[in-house]
Amino acid sequence: MTRPVTLFTGQWADLPLEDLAEKAGRWGFDGLELACWGDHFEVDRALAEDDYCAGIQEVLERNHLNCFALGAHLVGQAVCDPIDARHQVILPPEVWGDGDPTSVKERAAERMKDTARAAARLGVTQVNGFTGSAIWHLLYSFPPNDFAEVERGYDDFAERWSSIIDVFDAEGVKFGLEVHPTEIAYDFVTTRRTLDAIGNRAGFGINLDPSHFAHQHLDTAQFALEFPDRIYHVHVKDSRKRLDGRRSILGSHLNFGEEARGWDFVSPGHGDVDFEELFRALNRIGYQGPLSIEWEDSGMNREYGAQDALAFVRRTDFTPSDVAFDAAMQRS
Amino acid sequence: MTRPVTLFTGQWADLPLEDLAEKAGRWGFDGLELACWGDHFEVDRALAEDDYCAGIQEVLERNHLNCFALGAHLVGQAVCDPIDARHQVILPPEVWGDGDPTSVKERAAERMKDTARAAARLGVTQVNGFTGSAIWHLLYSFPPNDFAEVERGYDDFAERWSSIIDVFDAEGVKFGLEVHPTEIAYDFVTTRRTLDAIGNRAGFGINLDPSHFAHQHLDTAQFALEFPDRIYHVHVKDSRKRLDGRRSILGSHLNFGEEARGWDFVSPGHGDVDFEELFRALNRIGYQGPLSIEWEDSGMNREYGAQDALAFVRRTDFTPSDVAFDAAMQRS
Amino acid sequence: MTRPVTLFTGQWADLPLEDLAEKAGRWGFDGLELACWGDHFEVDRALAEDDYCAGIQEVLERNHLNCFALGAHLVGQAVCDPIDARHQVILPPEVWGDGDPTSVKERAAERMKDTARAAARLGVTQVNGFTGSAIWHLLYSFPPNDFAEVERGYDDFAERWSSIIDVFDAEGVKFGLEVHPTEIAYDFVTTRRTLDAIGNRAGFGINLDPSHFAHQHLDTAQFALEFPDRIYHVHVKDSRKRLDGRRSILGSHLNFGEEARGWDFVSPGHGDVDFEELFRALNRIGYQGPLSIEWEDSGMNREYGAQDALAFVRRTDFTPSDVAFDAAMQRS
Amino acid sequence: MTRPVTLFTGQWADLPLEDLAEKAGRWGFDGLELACWGDHFEVDRALAEDDYCAGIQEVLERNHLNCFALGAHLVGQAVCDPIDARHQVILPPEVWGDGDPTSVKERAAERMKDTARAAARLGVTQVNGFTGSAIWHLLYSFPPNDFAEVERGYDDFAERWSSIIDVFDAEGVKFGLEVHPTEIAYDFVTTRRTLDAIGNRAGFGINLDPSHFAHQHLDTAQFALEFPDRIYHVHVKDSRKRLDGRRSILGSHLNFGEEARGWDFVSPGHGDVDFEELFRALNRIGYQGPLSIEWEDSGMNREYGAQDALAFVRRTDFTPSDVAFDAAMQRS
Amino acid sequence: MTRPVTLFTGQWADLPLEDLAEKAGRWGFDGLELACWGDHFEVDRALAEDDYCAGIQEVLERNHLNCFALGAHLVGQAVCDPIDARHQVILPPEVWGDGDPTSVKERAAERMKDTARAAARLGVTQVNGFTGSAIWHLLYSFPPNDFAEVERGYDDFAERWSSIIDVFDAEGVKFGLEVHPTEIAYDFVTTRRTLDAIGNRAGFGINLDPSHFAHQHLDTAQFALEFPDRIYHVHVKDSRKRLDGRRSILGSHLNFGEEARGWDFVSPGHGDVDFEELFRALNRIGYQGPLSIEWEDSGMNREYGAQDALAFVRRTDFTPSDVAFDAAMQRS
Amino acid sequence: MTRPVTLFTGQWADLPLEDLAEKAGRWGFDGLELACWGDHFEVDRALAEDDYCAGIQEVLERNHLNCFALGAHLVGQAVCDPIDARHQVILPPEVWGDGDPTSVKERAAERMKDTARAAARLGVTQVNGFTGSAIWHLLYSFPPNDFAEVERGYDDFAERWSSIIDVFDAEGVKFGLEVHPTEIAYDFVTTRRTLDAIGNRAGFGINLDPSHFAHQHLDTAQFALEFPDRIYHVHVKDSRKRLDGRRSILGSHLNFGEEARGWDFVSPGHGDVDFEELFRALNRIGYQGPLSIEWEDSGMNREYGAQDALAFVRRTDFTPSDVAFDAAMQRS
Repeated sequence: MTRPVTLFTGQWADLPLEDLAEKAGRWGFDGLELACWGDHFEVDRALAEDDYCAGIQEVLERNHLNCFALGAHLVGQAVCDPIDARHQVILPPEVWGDGDPTSVKERAAERMKDTARAAARLGVTQVNGFTGSAIWHLLYSFPPNDFAEVERGYDDFAERWSSIIDVFDAEGVKFGLEVHPTEIAYDFVTTRRTLDAIGNRAGFGINLDPSHFAHQHLDTAQFALEFPDRIYHVHVKDSRKRLDGRRSILGSHLNFGEEARGWDFVSPGHGDVDFEELFRALNRIGYQGPLSIEWEDSGMNREYGAQDALAFVRRTDFTPSDVAFDAAMQRS
Repeated sequence: MTRPVTLFTGQWADLPLEDLAEKAGRWGFDGLELACWGDHFEVDRALAEDDYCAGIQEVLERNHLNCFALGAHLVGQAVCDPIDARHQVILPPEVWGDGDPTSVKERAAERMKDTARAAARLGVTQVNGFTGSAIWHLLYSFPPNDFAEVERGYDDFAERWSSIIDVFDAEGVKFGLEVHPTEIAYDFVTTRRTLDAIGNRAGFGINLDPSHFAHQHLDTAQFALEFPDRIYHVHVKDSRKRLDGRRSILGSHLNFGEEARGWDFVSPGHGDVDFEELFRALNRIGYQGPLSIEWEDSGMNREYGAQDALAFVRRTDFTPSDVAFDAAMQRS
Repeated sequence: MTRPVTLFTGQWADLPLEDLAEKAGRWGFDGLELACWGDHFEVDRALAEDDYCAGIQEVLERNHLNCFALGAHLVGQAVCDPIDARHQVILPPEVWGDGDPTSVKERAAERMKDTARAAARLGVTQVNGFTGSAIWHLLYSFPPNDFAEVERGYDDFAERWSSIIDVFDAEGVKFGLEVHPTEIAYDFVTTRRTLDAIGNRAGFGINLDPSHFAHQHLDTAQFALEFPDRIYHVHVKDSRKRLDGRRSILGSHLNFGEEARGWDFVSPGHGDVDFEELFRALNRIGYQGPLSIEWEDSGMNREYGAQDALAFVRRTDFTPSDVAFDAAMQRS
Repeated sequence: MTRPVTLFTGQWADLPLEDLAEKAGRWGFDGLELACWGDHFEVDRALAEDDYCAGIQEVLERNHLNCFALGAHLVGQAVCDPIDARHQVILPPEVWGDGDPTSVKERAAERMKDTARAAARLGVTQVNGFTGSAIWHLLYSFPPNDFAEVERGYDDFAERWSSIIDVFDAEGVKFGLEVHPTEIAYDFVTTRRTLDAIGNRAGFGINLDPSHFAHQHLDTAQFALEFPDRIYHVHVKDSRKRLDGRRSILGSHLNFGEEARGWDFVSPGHGDVDFEELFRALNRIGYQGPLSIEWEDSGMNREYGAQDALAFVRRTDFTPSDVAFDAAMQRS
Repeated sequence: MTRPVTLFTGQWADLPLEDLAEKAGRWGFDGLELACWGDHFEVDRALAEDDYCAGIQEVLERNHLNCFALGAHLVGQAVCDPIDARHQVILPPEVWGDGDPTSVKERAAERMKDTARAAARLGVTQVNGFTGSAIWHLLYSFPPNDFAEVERGYDDFAERWSSIIDVFDAEGVKFGLEVHPTEIAYDFVTTRRTLDAIGNRAGFGINLDPSHFAHQHLDTAQFALEFPDRIYHVHVKDSRKRLDGRRSILGSHLNFGEEARGWDFVSPGHGDVDFEELFRALNRIGYQGPLSIEWEDSGMNREYGAQDALAFVRRTDFTPSDVAFDAAMQRS
Repeated sequence: MTRPVTLFTGQWADLPLEDLAEKAGRWGFDGLELACWGDHFEVDRALAEDDYCAGIQEVLERNHLNCFALGAHLVGQAVCDPIDARHQVILPPEVWGDGDPTSVKERAAERMKDTARAAARLGVTQVNGFTGSAIWHLLYSFPPNDFAEVERGYDDFAERWSSIIDVFDAEGVKFGLEVHPTEIAYDFVTTRRTLDAIGNRAGFGINLDPSHFAHQHLDTAQFALEFPDRIYHVHVKDSRKRLDGRRSILGSHLNFGEEARGWDFVSPGHGDVDFEELFRALNRIGYQGPLSIEWEDSGMNREYGAQDALAFVRRTDFTPSDVAFDAAMQRS
């Protein structure tokens, strides 16, 4: 049996959940990874209203959809980031509040704890998201970094997230960091350091999204084999390098979708990610959770693309072997 | 006749100019690109002491060295950057002062104007350096950038540097931005926007350093052909990608020289830069200025490397053709 | 909505239009690009017989087919070419006439004007074709070219085709040169010079066929972006390089389909053309015209191939996006 | 018309033929290549029991399956190999007998003759298999080979197999060696020498299996063109190189399916074999026999894979052309 | 002992032989391949003046130079070419005469016979050159070639050159066609056909110049192994592909040296030719003749380049082995 | 200071040591790695004759040569190998004896112990060599391997070599296995298992020879970093892949030097090994021992090659850095 295929709702937050669930069910998805923004999953209402979660589940069931995970990327980002004006746009007003950086970060941390509680209410044991990072802006070491400051960034992360993960543990929910540029972990090296910083505790794992690896020239399948017991959730998202000697891999301060960028997100199967190799690695480590399509392609119609992506995953994912060939290749 | 080969003194600031000049002369360099830090070239003294520049020139001449350009990277960086603790380490105490960001940036701008004045006193018409950038930290657009803020970054640059370049113009000196990550321009797209932002005025050009292009997957030779009338100075520096699916092109927050980095600086000729193609492009655009070796390779002995680099440039650079072959390939 | 897919009838001229239209309709094509040879579209009859065009349209409609363009390659070739025996085979007898080169070229030019008139009668506003070239045979400059003669080749083209395009303009029809070796334009450089030679007038544009670019190592998607306002029509045709150190890219004077050739035409999707990249570029420039399959593969059954190609285009072409992701990736 | 697609039963010998035939018929295969082990095709019974072959044919027909070839790899291996314990596992007890190497080899040769006789009884004219090799273990010449010993290996092969092929000739059956490491022929050079050694007689040809070529960096399509009149049968099997600088192409003494191997077998279409190029070569040499899927992929469910492979072949194989394009591309 | 290194004088015909010989001797060349134009070697004077050849030899000897071969490219080109205005520029006036194509070709053939006679007088047994081609302009088969006409082109070549080679044979001189686009042979396929057309007679061989192979994606070393007994002379010349998706491999009707070309000639060792592989192949076939540098690089100073090329050949060419390692790697 | 460069004498055993030492000294080598065959270093005489070692040292000193290591490859091979006729050629007669496999292996093991003793007498603390392997012939698992037999191969190795290494330990000498096909360890995986099998004891390390890695597609520099504390000695030897789709990577049972092989040994710097990357890795792990040129290239003159290789190493090896650049790139 192959893995369930879900749709991450983060890029569809302009649609009410009712409408999106109807579409996703009709297209044949097995479930939704509900974003904690828009009206898809509202953490505060889930905790405040007794029937809120039942209502969400009803919408899902009516459309023959499961929910295996929540996506809490936006609030998570504010936990460790140096706060600037961009965060106001992605945070709920009550988390942004007066915008005082210290307070925003604290409120974001509290909201993440509430998210674990709300997930438990919904009966979901996996929350994916971002952590933010106090040191991402030190990416290129000029002026020369004080590498002790980099160390302090990991410590700051560990301190802020340990108390959050305490609540996750208490609720029986796991957190999956989407390893991603701008986060505390974005590649092999930084993931190792991040997991070490937080004591490799089981409550903090990885939401593996290959689209963020391909443009860094990283091999996602090898990543899965490197951290086999921390792959808690998997996104199916793709990106494509378009390097011709004139387009920088660094992005040129251009928005996604601009022709002159050196790489961009594309619909799964249209980019550089070797999904078969990734799925084989997931088989090898025994991952049986959902493949959650996070759909983003600035050059393709969104509804066409979601269905194209679903078909792609259905034909690319496959069941592992349960036969040894040597046995067969012998006289009976 | 091939181009003069100089040594940029920035990576040798631990040595007194006397010692370094002696070495460089003995190794066979044609000149030095003097860094405006250490005791190599002190802007304040050049303006305050009547015989300072003569003293510098005497040291150079005694070692059969010319000076075609100054390097003012460290102070320039502070003109547009958001100031943080790292800048204190690279700035002269009197520029850092109380460390108030607004004031530091103003003092840095004033020092850049003084640098033009000091260069003129020394009889040098080219100053290379960095600009800093108000928007470099917005490199990866998450939280999603407000691209108007990116625009304002170019405007901020233009405003701060226009008044600096006014002084350069008055002194008959040109500024060459070393196109480089962390600066307002680091690739084709951002260089075009930077030059446009400052009105493509002649006083503001480029110090072309290919080591910063190679790891971005950019073609430096094409860059020279794209901005032929703004290539005012050329660094010979190299970098090498070491991508194996586990090392990120983004650097992993590791210091230069760490084994796990996806790219690193290496001695010229030991990396990915196609110097022959670059030198052919320089021939094509008529560049006849110095090739200034900026030597940095954390895995090689510095003195060995400087001589190795000089020999590399001497055997790789060549004189353009002055013959048409068609004419010869005909009956006389 | 994706673009209509048509079949260029030039490689099927051995079949009567009635038969071919029935097949194409049954296979699911949206239309035919009618070749002006065989009985597919006869220019002289279209002008001479009042009901000829209505008859053609009736055949198309009966098979649920549209016609967006005519293909007039064979006669167009004779307008600028030095005429030799090979042209007799591709020209109608009345255009070949006595075979006197000067007269053949004039008659070919007149027939092209008639083709515009006939297209207008049929209600079609696009005619694709070849121009021929007075200088193609100077491809490799030995004996050394007099490059003034090359210049005269562009002038000759401009003179002959300007009067043709005058008629196209008068009839409200546009001409699309299929950029192609043996023509006045076959790559980026020569297309730029060709368009410049004819004053970049709107009546003269491009029928973009990627199969002629791939074996030249050219990027068709970049070509579309380079000449965005002159892409009037698009062929879907593919070619494949088969270079192994023993097969020349130049063709070895072997006919198409010979094993020892270094490249060959193949059914779309079976070769080197990156159609997704091309279709994305067409989306970017807003091209909404037909994708016209010109089917040629000497190793594949033609009827199998036409259907295979249609399926390939249907699954590869897609609708552009109409959503901004940033908006969705924010708190609602 | 495209070629029939069959399933080689060797990797399914744990299933009774009845069951396997039912599955293969239901999945849509055109036939089975019956392995001479398990109960799929029992050579001794075919010769001893008058109705055995009719019974086999009945099973096939009931499931709408043909049989174009037998697979006699295991016994064939023992004809030339130095015998060791591994052979006991793959040989029928009566061929292994007392395990005396000389006698085992003779009994294996006799059984191969019987296989030809049994094939004739079944009405099948093609038997595929291995030959073994007296010299395979001399692969890497250290201690330095006495190359006369290598020559003697070919002689030994020729002597042992000539008498076998005499029986094949008499029965009107042909043998197809599956060119493969561990056999007397495994690449271009050794195949040429093998065919020469046995006098290029028609009874001894090739069962072409591209999976054994890909990891040797060999081009199977070129192989087909090199030995066009000896390609008697074709396997569709695939392999994939996974070289990353740490995995050896030589296999590391690891079993198939181990993560650290440098190459492995994979389901057709999931590996390095260019099947389209191979099928075009088969068209060119006029091969019209079966494409027999030998399915082996230690990372994929076997039943899923067999169907996936069948679909892959159906959509990849195609009929050659019967039209000349030049004729069509002329005025009618 | 390594092979002698000579300089082909064709690209230096603007210099008197006296001057050029002095330079070449001083730079360390072993000899000159004298071009039959300029004043380097004048065929008519060699036949007419008794002491002409002795005078040439005296110049050479004075500069310690040998002459192993003549270069008669320009006149040879006119033997088979369709004559046009470009030939007037490369032919001696008396060969061009009235410019009537039929007569020009005949006079060129006669002059080639005289060249053999003159070579014999000079004591040189090798003449290199071009043949021209009646069919080069049919390179791309559109309008579709009548391939019988291509056949006739080879016949025309064989007829015209057979009588020339008769004289070469009589004089004990061999002709070496420089396989080259625009000639009757330019790759593997056409060389095979050319040698077959002229009956593979020993008087007609090859002057192997790798610069004409590299841009065709051909492997010159394999070419040497393919025609081992016809490699009579070797040019050391290089070319470089500069393909970026915008530059055509076909040359864009641009002159050599233009930036936008897809390939160009460069000084030996600066391009795509794998000279070590070529020299190993020459060792393998036992070629011991000269390596004659034909120097052409529109981006490099000619005199610098000639010396650079000589140093390159000296350090790249090496003597074959005369030891068997197996023997040494044994106990003595 | 860079590393000493020595010459391994194994491929020169046809020359008396006196002659070879004179050559090596004249060419500029720093020392010899003496082969324990020919008259270069005779283990039995070293133990039997009191002045033998002094005599060897005298020859070395007279030629200004050191000796850092012995090479005992031939005898070592017989310790674990299944013995066949090929071993007789490489073994001293007294080790071969009656050729009984069990006894040969025992005598070879004893001779290896003597080699340690003799090395100690000579004052050399490093012996390089081969181990042989009981399982190499099981390389390709067909007939299917019993992998327990593979395990037993490692056990057999550990048992035989543990008692040998006991003597090495007692003598203060280390053994360096040259990781190599045909040995118990030939890649990353098998080296790990080999070191584990022998308990990772310090007496048993690696003689790293990159030429055996390149054709396996292995990265020697990564290997050095993987086993940093076991790199006891380094060979400088090179190999080159020549894969064209027709040549197998497996060697085709052809002798070294045959044109049709898929890879071959070549003089250092002429092949696929990235020596700079290797030398950087050696710097990183702190290896300061000799770089010992094992010269083998069947296409190059041996004496030319040895000098070419020495020059290559001298210009490629370099001293590591002892400066931190950050410190310099700051205001003084």
